[in-house]
Amino acid sequence: MFNTITIVGVGLISGSFSLILKERGWVKHVIGVSRTEQSIKKALELGLIDEALPLEEAVKKSDLIYVAIPVDATIPVMQKILDCVNEKQIVVDAGSTKQVLCDALANHPMRRRFVATHPMWGTEYSGPEAAVSNAFAGRVCVVCEKEKSDSDAVETVEGVYKQLGMHVTYMDADAHDIHAAYVSHISHITSFALANTVLEKEKEENAIFELAGGGFESTVRLAKSSPAMWLPIFQQNREHVLDVLNEHITQLRKFKSCLEKENYTYLQELMENANKINRIIK
Amino acid sequence: MFNTITIVGVGLISGSFSLILKERGWVKHVIGVSRTEQSIKKALELGLIDEALPLEEAVKKSDLIYVAIPVDATIPVMQKILDCVNEKQIVVDAGSTKQVLCDALANHPMRRRFVATHPMWGTEYSGPEAAVSNAFAGRVCVVCEKEKSDSDAVETVEGVYKQLGMHVTYMDADAHDIHAAYVSHISHITSFALANTVLEKEKEENAIFELAGGGFESTVRLAKSSPAMWLPIFQQNREHVLDVLNEHITQLRKFKSCLEKENYTYLQELMENANKINRIIK
Repeated sequence: MFNTITIVGVGLISGSFSLILKERGWVKHVIGVSRTEQSIKKALELGLIDEALPLEEAVKKSDLIYVAIPVDATIPVMQKILDCVNEKQIVVDAGSTKQVLCDALANHPMRRRFVATHPMWGTEYSGPEAAVSNAFAGRVCVVCEKEKSDSDAVETVEGVYKQLGMHVTYMDADAHDIHAAYVSHISHITSFALANTVLEKEKEENAIFELAGGGFESTVRLAKSSPAMWLPIFQQNREHVLDVLNEHITQLRKFKSCLEKENYTYLQELMENANKINRIIK
Repeated sequence: MFNTITIVGVGLISGSFSLILKERGWVKHVIGVSRTEQSIKKALELGLIDEALPLEEAVKKSDLIYVAIPVDATIPVMQKILDCVNEKQIVVDAGSTKQVLCDALANHPMRRRFVATHPMWGTEYSGPEAAVSNAFAGRVCVVCEKEKSDSDAVETVEGVYKQLGMHVTYMDADAHDIHAAYVSHISHITSFALANTVLEKEKEENAIFELAGGGFESTVRLAKSSPAMWLPIFQQNREHVLDVLNEHITQLRKFKSCLEKENYTYLQELMENANKINRIIK
């Protein structure tokens, strides 16, 4: 499918992307770009990439450039990439926020070679070692501002995601960011805050974690996520995340108020309402 | 190991308990007690129990009686059971709260035949169909007020849990309830509240759940939990749950305040602190 691709960032998302394309024989040669020498070394070792090159050199040799780095770094890197590409090359990003990036690239003369995507898959781990070959399948990939990208570029990128088993859906960048705040960003904040809640208690009670069972593990798992990755997401999506966080605190206060007032009828209603998530999450 | 045991309640916990003991040949005959005809039928069908009997009849025939029903129902049922048992029978409960139950049974003449346990295992599912044969292993089981139970009873019960692969630990009932509030009950409240947060949004945005990815699923999974089971847990552990919930809301407000004030240095610190959960949760 491709002769050469470049992955910018050699971590969880880009590493998994490369791994799968290589495994399936869809790419002959993968170039890695990273500021971190150790990540490059590890990515070469794990076979995620075949060689490492500086950004511009890598871009020039590639049919497709796949960018998956912290969202604040994406903007200047993407501008540099678009400065180098020709009419046949395709540039994709996989970031968790879309509005700020799309706005920053809106007037770039090569904007149409860029496809803004967010494959809604991830784990709490990061770095080359986190890459896995069963990534992406069964999840949704959002493509934003499809109409601003050349249709051949969109088709190629969609084709890859679909063959990875993803369901492709379209949104404008702002709608994406609102939705992502609800179904992803808030989960990370609640997990971070829950970890801090329990770590606070741990100061007086060393034994507390001995008990931590399955339920706790799954709700707190995302608290292991990388701040380097999540801080710029929260920055860029600040307003939407704040809206959802306010709503979430309001919902938690309802539980609090029920307990304080011993209003168990309403507490039961709140839980029964939450059970409706059954319809959605299998 | 046992000739006959009775499970009171034929759901997730008791059903799994029976299933494993039967599979390993540790019990010849399992009697089920349940108020719900349909659950009995299902439990017989699934081979979780060999026969169904009314409580008193079942208890009389059993070496060990294992009670796993909503914690408000446990108290009267346990009193009835202790009224029937002799010096050789053993009674165990598996409930998520311990103080109220232990207090209620404190002066029962047969208190010493009762072992108060909380195997810290569960899933978001309930009922006989939820029973699985890989339950319990690798998790902690808390035994409360060990000194109030006959040592032969404690040894037998601990022996079973240990052979199921559990690590047994001891606490007084109040300490258990505090710890359970931190590592289990609060996770359920945050999940219920997160589900309600997103369901609220869904009223205007039908497509929102299309995007729900892995992170969201794991943090919201517990919102499927049964209100019939969790309402009495929150009632009985009200004060500790309120303490933890207040602390959790305080922690969430820190995230909120960082975002409002764009204090990203502190936001990063909050996340880095949460990462310390790495030490604990593998």
